[in-house]
Amino acid sequence: MKIISETKSHGGVQGVYSHWSTTCNCDMTFAVFVPPQALVGKQPVLWFLSGLTCTHANAMEKGEYRRLASELGLIVVCPDTSPRGDTVPDEKDNWQFGHGAGFYVDATQSPFATNYRMYSYLLHELPELIATNFSADMSRQGIFGHSMGGHGALTMALKHPDRFKSCSAFAPIVQPSTAGWSRPALEKYLGIDESHWRAWDAVCLVEDGHCFPEILVDQGTADGFLEEGLRPWLLEEACRKTNINLTLRMQEGYDHSYYFISTFMDDHLNWHAARLSAVEFSDRSSGS
Amino acid sequence: MKIISETKSHGGVQGVYSHWSTTCNCDMTFAVFVPPQALVGKQPVLWFLSGLTCTHANAMEKGEYRRLASELGLIVVCPDTSPRGDTVPDEKDNWQFGHGAGFYVDATQSPFATNYRMYSYLLHELPELIATNFSADMSRQGIFGHSMGGHGALTMALKHPDRFKSCSAFAPIVQPSTAGWSRPALEKYLGIDESHWRAWDAVCLVEDGHCFPEILVDQGTADGFLEEGLRPWLLEEACRKTNINLTLRMQEGYDHSYYFISTFMDDHLNWHAARLSAVEFSDRSSGS
Repeated sequence: MKIISETKSHGGVQGVYSHWSTTCNCDMTFAVFVPPQALVGKQPVLWFLSGLTCTHANAMEKGEYRRLASELGLIVVCPDTSPRGDTVPDEKDNWQFGHGAGFYVDATQSPFATNYRMYSYLLHELPELIATNFSADMSRQGIFGHSMGGHGALTMALKHPDRFKSCSAFAPIVQPSTAGWSRPALEKYLGIDESHWRAWDAVCLVEDGHCFPEILVDQGTADGFLEEGLRPWLLEEACRKTNINLTLRMQEGYDHSYYFISTFMDDHLNWHAARLSAVEFSDRSSGS
Repeated sequence: MKIISETKSHGGVQGVYSHWSTTCNCDMTFAVFVPPQALVGKQPVLWFLSGLTCTHANAMEKGEYRRLASELGLIVVCPDTSPRGDTVPDEKDNWQFGHGAGFYVDATQSPFATNYRMYSYLLHELPELIATNFSADMSRQGIFGHSMGGHGALTMALKHPDRFKSCSAFAPIVQPSTAGWSRPALEKYLGIDESHWRAWDAVCLVEDGHCFPEILVDQGTADGFLEEGLRPWLLEEACRKTNINLTLRMQEGYDHSYYFISTFMDDHLNWHAARLSAVEFSDRSSGS
């Protein structure tokens, strides 16, 4: 792991790192904020997955998470949104596919399957790197994200409720398999058989029996992608039929930007901290 | 005045605007955050002047001022740092002069005097525009800034204690007339007679009898520009001999970036709010 930069901020350290990813077969860059509490003990890890066109830097620069993460004692990890580099296939003029648009899937189709494996990268390789290099309590992980990254957070949590103790999203793509801006990408990454897409679609996962205890979703009413691309009511409808306790908050007048994300960042950090901070005393209770 | 964008954030509106400046003889862009309190009454105005290479956008995107400004009821204005455009003289490969490096002076030398008039622009033209177009209480103005913008804030406040009720700075250039990175710019803008530079230099202004009641300065100890370019101890020394109450805080381990600025943004906003929020009741008391 190579240190790109480490900068003191809000009493902690905002770092940017890169490493050779054996999962994605390219160099990957990611950002980690380590709060001051990490000096005295391992802290919970909160993953933020960004949206289309973003890198690790967008949330780091505009997400405004450090002040409260520093108070709450949260390690915040912002991965990149896709593999990158000259050897990674891309469509230069298409912001909805390729570089910056990994959609957090494991691609099965050539030539994308060699690199576009963000799911496995985020599930295995990057957590191992975080556990090795930071004062991180990997038994306490939460996940959230924005737009395509909201889709990533929801699907990761629904598939791995054992791994993640908390989940939330800003303006997530809840059903990429039926949204115009994600269908072409899923077809190229996963093939034309749409039955394979259900494992990468939050609404389908809920319909297919995957579960997560509680989810917080904030959605701006002035978001230009709301009606066509996001449609949180589809997730609401799916959750209503299950035991998933979805809190969907329609936020009047807010758009799809980081001005919206930063406005509700504190609420989300508090949401996660409340579910991550309780240290498990299972070994203590089993010994009593 | 042309609206570039208006985006809801933290209950208020973050806007970006442009206009033809008759002072700078070019189009100028600026950012204004209007807190929700402005719907029910005029609010105080806090000016943030950015540093070298910056535009109106740097503090707007990375300054993290909206959450607390929204609570405190502060209008935050982020002007550009210089005139711009194809007709404005520039030195393309010099980040310390020309576009992005107006140094908040009124240039007297050809060919710069036609456009580089940031001082008059910020003292007259832009405040008039703000007063006309926003719910701004122009009797309550504060000013702060970073680096070159810290220099701008200090000199504006020292020259106009009647205008500004509060002043603070992040890592300001306190004596540009003797710092390597500002001397060439002052020479080109103001001419070789250094006696004319004193009016644009905070330490010299203090030495020459200009006064301001209280000033807050934060400075990171890991700031790479500290020893050569910033040297806050020069301002400390000058203020010690006067009635200026300077609070200089050396912040251990912080650098020159927006990670430093955003860390102490809340402290500065509270500093200004405490000095701006008290509405003057002079007409009421004179009537009693």
